[in-house]
Amino acid sequence: MIRVVLDAMGGDFGPAAAVAGAAMASLDAEGVHVVLTGPAEVIQRELDLHPHDPRRLSLLDAGPPVPMDADPRAALERCPEASIAVATRLLREGGADGLVSAGHTGATVLSAASQLERIAGVHRAALAAVVPTEAPHGPRRDPFSLMLDVGATLHVTGRELVEFAIMGAAYSSIISGIREPSVALLSNGTEPGKGPAEVVEAHRVLSGVPVRFVGNVEGLDIPRGTADVFVCEGYVGNVVLKMLEGVADVFRELAVDAAARHLKWKLGLSMLEGGMRRLHRVADWEHYGGSPLLGFEQVIIKAHGRSGPVAIRNAIKVSAKAVEGGLARRIAAGIESLEEAR
Amino acid sequence: MIRVVLDAMGGDFGPAAAVAGAAMASLDAEGVHVVLTGPAEVIQRELDLHPHDPRRLSLLDAGPPVPMDADPRAALERCPEASIAVATRLLREGGADGLVSAGHTGATVLSAASQLERIAGVHRAALAAVVPTEAPHGPRRDPFSLMLDVGATLHVTGRELVEFAIMGAAYSSIISGIREPSVALLSNGTEPGKGPAEVVEAHRVLSGVPVRFVGNVEGLDIPRGTADVFVCEGYVGNVVLKMLEGVADVFRELAVDAAARHLKWKLGLSMLEGGMRRLHRVADWEHYGGSPLLGFEQVIIKAHGRSGPVAIRNAIKVSAKAVEGGLARRIAAGIESLEEAR
Repeated sequence: MIRVVLDAMGGDFGPAAAVAGAAMASLDAEGVHVVLTGPAEVIQRELDLHPHDPRRLSLLDAGPPVPMDADPRAALERCPEASIAVATRLLREGGADGLVSAGHTGATVLSAASQLERIAGVHRAALAAVVPTEAPHGPRRDPFSLMLDVGATLHVTGRELVEFAIMGAAYSSIISGIREPSVALLSNGTEPGKGPAEVVEAHRVLSGVPVRFVGNVEGLDIPRGTADVFVCEGYVGNVVLKMLEGVADVFRELAVDAAARHLKWKLGLSMLEGGMRRLHRVADWEHYGGSPLLGFEQVIIKAHGRSGPVAIRNAIKVSAKAVEGGLARRIAAGIESLEEAR
Repeated sequence: MIRVVLDAMGGDFGPAAAVAGAAMASLDAEGVHVVLTGPAEVIQRELDLHPHDPRRLSLLDAGPPVPMDADPRAALERCPEASIAVATRLLREGGADGLVSAGHTGATVLSAASQLERIAGVHRAALAAVVPTEAPHGPRRDPFSLMLDVGATLHVTGRELVEFAIMGAAYSSIISGIREPSVALLSNGTEPGKGPAEVVEAHRVLSGVPVRFVGNVEGLDIPRGTADVFVCEGYVGNVVLKMLEGVADVFRELAVDAAARHLKWKLGLSMLEGGMRRLHRVADWEHYGGSPLLGFEQVIIKAHGRSGPVAIRNAIKVSAKAVEGGLARRIAAGIESLEEAR
């Protein structure tokens, strides 16, 4: 039985969405046991509203969530029993193999960094996100690539970029079922010598590591999806990811605005509904289980704040799948071969 | 009379587009004289094809362009008489006030860096680009913001980011007619303490400089256009700019692909034509005169490689407008007040 602990208070919809998602998982995620952290009476009340399998769900009493707009360091100091802190502690003590939270991203990263051991040889944890792409990936033709880091770091060294490449490839291989995911470095030109010093160094090292490294790529390769995994420092990854969200929002608003003003456009848009839904689905990366925080012995999945019950259920399944696929072991093996190559 | 020198060989369409654009400018850009650099016989042959005012056009014999796929340093060493090198030399010698090139970006930057003086107190030149935005800017409601640097640098210091802010504000003020353009720092969070060390330092300094500084913004603020000028290091700016181009291309292809497969979608798209044209225009930043390379005593405009005659003509006009508006003088004044504030 794989044990996944869920911060049952985190996310824009609080325990209503989280507990409903866990209840769904208890019925259809085989071989998974979910531990819910948060005030026991709050969680029990939510749980009573949903059909669930009580043999595959348990409660672990904890405090409230870290508020979405709080400074995470101050909030965790003020409330060491916050639901995310208690969930992370359970991971550390071996009471769970994976963690899912739709709560405060900074608090999730900080809880993990302060409580958990990193895999030997990994210098920095990285948050990876899926980005929508034109090209399909892997046997299931997933319409997205993985990009990391998107915000756990700011600037990094070349060695750290190489670690990100190894971690991203391991995750992509397990989750998308790609035997050898292609990995690219995000730079300002495709030539090996292009980019900041750390990118140039990473390029040199990656050529001698057991990762299918396809070289440097540029910004336009992200929407095209020319690699399965894009590697960059957290500052760049964060700006890029948030910009993609902004672009999708703006396109949507412009279309709605146009429709409101002209009857002909409204008619045209309604005829396009099927196509718009498809476009929307391509851009809707919330449904792919969330963002893994990579580099720790345990599996941590940061689900989107706006996650509803289905997204939470998916994140629980993805977390279990990564545990089952031996994520930490595969990352450790990659790092070892990196040490040997030096 | 403002004198603008044009690399008449640069760009995807070579002298055919450049010379045609210059011919147009000679007829409708008042108070501007254009000097064309390139092999005299090639340019003369093109010029004979287009109506033009010979009193406002002259030729300066030079070699071929730097090929678009060449390493710019090697190419300029091999051919010191390349059309961009000769054009830049004319700037240095005072024979022109502004330069326009649709040729190799790296060669344009390198020619300027090796031949021209930077404005006193400016440590690094920056390439600025216009990015399409939802919000309109300035009295003419321009649907774009300015972003810099987009590739003349990689990583920079906090002081250099402040210089970029001053330069971007000066340019935006002259070209978009905004009295006090709002300037934002691109970061991974809006709080003053958020971001890499150089962003945090720039944030502190900018609060005491005569620029309308609106603080840190995130990636999603770029398509929204919440500031007139976005400031970042060249590595980030380059990735972001190329990604925006890629996103626009992918959206276009998905729409065309959908239309080809379903009659109903095709019909819907044709009814939406007006709206699509508007969307397209928003995303079509080629038509706003090109990207200024800021930091030198002279005005340098890098036009898009795909520029046709109208885009070249527009770039010439923009270059003359920046000269007329006293771009270098305004940047110098901003830098002086920065020195005083220290």
